[in-house]
Amino acid sequence: MLKLNLVAKDKNSKARAGWFETDHGVVETPIFMPVGTQGSVKAVNQFYLEKEIKAQIVLSNTYHLYLRPGTEILEDAGGLHRFMNWQKPILTDSGGYQVFSLTELRKLKEDGVEFRSHLDGSKHFFTPEKVIQIQRSIGSDIMMVLDECAPYPCDYEYAKKSVQLTSNWAILNKKAFSESEPKYGHKQFLFGIIQGSIYKDLRKKSAEDLLELDFDSYAIGGLAVGEPTELMYELVDYTTDLMPENRPRYLMGVGRPENILESVTLGVDMFDCVMPTRNARNANVFTWNGTLSMRNAKYKDDFKPLDENCGCYTCRNFTRAYLRHLFVAEELLALELASVHNLYFYLELVRKAREKIIDGTFNEWKNQIVKQISIKN
Amino acid sequence: MLKLNLVAKDKNSKARAGWFETDHGVVETPIFMPVGTQGSVKAVNQFYLEKEIKAQIVLSNTYHLYLRPGTEILEDAGGLHRFMNWQKPILTDSGGYQVFSLTELRKLKEDGVEFRSHLDGSKHFFTPEKVIQIQRSIGSDIMMVLDECAPYPCDYEYAKKSVQLTSNWAILNKKAFSESEPKYGHKQFLFGIIQGSIYKDLRKKSAEDLLELDFDSYAIGGLAVGEPTELMYELVDYTTDLMPENRPRYLMGVGRPENILESVTLGVDMFDCVMPTRNARNANVFTWNGTLSMRNAKYKDDFKPLDENCGCYTCRNFTRAYLRHLFVAEELLALELASVHNLYFYLELVRKAREKIIDGTFNEWKNQIVKQISIKN
Repeated sequence: MLKLNLVAKDKNSKARAGWFETDHGVVETPIFMPVGTQGSVKAVNQFYLEKEIKAQIVLSNTYHLYLRPGTEILEDAGGLHRFMNWQKPILTDSGGYQVFSLTELRKLKEDGVEFRSHLDGSKHFFTPEKVIQIQRSIGSDIMMVLDECAPYPCDYEYAKKSVQLTSNWAILNKKAFSESEPKYGHKQFLFGIIQGSIYKDLRKKSAEDLLELDFDSYAIGGLAVGEPTELMYELVDYTTDLMPENRPRYLMGVGRPENILESVTLGVDMFDCVMPTRNARNANVFTWNGTLSMRNAKYKDDFKPLDENCGCYTCRNFTRAYLRHLFVAEELLALELASVHNLYFYLELVRKAREKIIDGTFNEWKNQIVKQISIKN
Repeated sequence: MLKLNLVAKDKNSKARAGWFETDHGVVETPIFMPVGTQGSVKAVNQFYLEKEIKAQIVLSNTYHLYLRPGTEILEDAGGLHRFMNWQKPILTDSGGYQVFSLTELRKLKEDGVEFRSHLDGSKHFFTPEKVIQIQRSIGSDIMMVLDECAPYPCDYEYAKKSVQLTSNWAILNKKAFSESEPKYGHKQFLFGIIQGSIYKDLRKKSAEDLLELDFDSYAIGGLAVGEPTELMYELVDYTTDLMPENRPRYLMGVGRPENILESVTLGVDMFDCVMPTRNARNANVFTWNGTLSMRNAKYKDDFKPLDENCGCYTCRNFTRAYLRHLFVAEELLALELASVHNLYFYLELVRKAREKIIDGTFNEWKNQIVKQISIKN
């Protein structure tokens, strides 16, 4: 198992501060994982990722890495850490989510999922065994099981079958994991993924099936796929109660800064989302006083930093007017500066949350901050 | 005048090592100036530009800055140095070259050039006085006169008229310069531009006209516009002899690494070119053993750095296989890493040239290096 070492628990909520350890270092929770889909966090170099943004762990995508550069090159490189020169922990998803969201003509079968590459139409088949093999070649510190991420809305019967399939696959994932070895000398953990759409009894069934298999830890999948936010929180709240207390809980694909804080309140420890980098590339930046749309003409002679309370490279060195100019003039530097800022903001958000949990002032802080950061300027 | 302080002269050629000083610091020559067209060196942030690439001076474009962000915003910012947060020297061209190369429907008149913006078609008029005013608002350490850059090929009669126009404008440039003051408290120099196409007598006439006006220093314009390379060298060789010994000589828009070394041999001190950054964005990188095209499949499992003799951020941290993957996967990081490498290479090239001139081994070194770096891998 991957032990979550508890440092503090909030007395007014389920929020907790802790840490866990991998062979590539310690991760302090709650934590946000920048997304490096293809072995690169978009527009941000590894030096800034580590030294400026202070990322402790990044997420990369099995589906994308499998198609490009492919497992052979990753193995020749000595794994993804060496390939991308990132010596801190890496988590990889199983590729299931991308198969369901990116590919057409996919065929779900009892033993796996057949799909055509979104790049060249070539045919591939992912099974639980296969995605474990691929993640062994990647060498991620935390691997995820192949699951089915049901769409939203999803009727009860479909969701029930989907949970059963995910549970069946979980057995095969665990078996393939137990019968294989890491390739690069460092330990790899495997997380199970609790599904069940919006149905609590199915979430319970899924959790029970997976806990029986004793995965290193567990994630909540199948949320943030279009359901109302309040419903998402209700299901997160319900599901974290089903998860082991002493292992990190990972809510996949979430989310906006306020979603992260609310989910920390509900007992979640790990998050990932493309939002900070994707929004940055669309000129949308996060600040402690809400979001800014940097193409807006009102910033053309605004010589303040993006956020006066931010200590990132971008805010230490550049003004809103310069950022706005770079976006309007379509300069590539705009993408780097906004991405560095947004990721710094996300990491600062979880660092502060952790600090406040330890201080015993998390809930008050969270309620105030959620209001501030939700403002659209 | 802008004094070039001579440190050494090569005994076998016209190459010289020196330095000059601006209020934003010293520039050691020969020097290459990275191009930051719109107030940003494409895909490279200012920290890397200064600390990794060790750029000593950058070039920015009056035409582009005039259109975007415009002089009003630049003035509000306190000039371009503050706007882009670059505290080392800046040279700006006069905008003439862009008017002639980027705009359609331009109309050349005795007192200036009328043109329509390549962005929105709006009508503008550049005169010698106007481009001085704009460069005062930009606050560049070195400003350039408005000139006419004749196309290639260019018949003698056209070239002769063009030199006359450039000489007439030079008087007005100088007058506007003398009658105006810097806006931000630091000194600004003004360079004249020697034109004359491929005709030596016109080059001579142009040089004589301009030298009479006593500009702070001089540039060679109107070369590297399509003429054969050997012809370019012949004209550079001829023209540097017409230029003052004790002021930095600037060859505008040149060029490939081998062009720079050959022109250093011919007595040129300053260079600028978009090639290192533009080629980088097209996956073409420079090395001490020739150029590499990083999309080539042969690099897919090549785990060497771009150049084993290079000390840049990219070469210290990443492999050809990773770079190739980033280009193929269309990751933005590819553009930054290749741009940082190419600019580092260009700056290292002029640093080494300077070192060899001081050592007294420039010519032998240059002949060997030109062969090596011209290989197409």
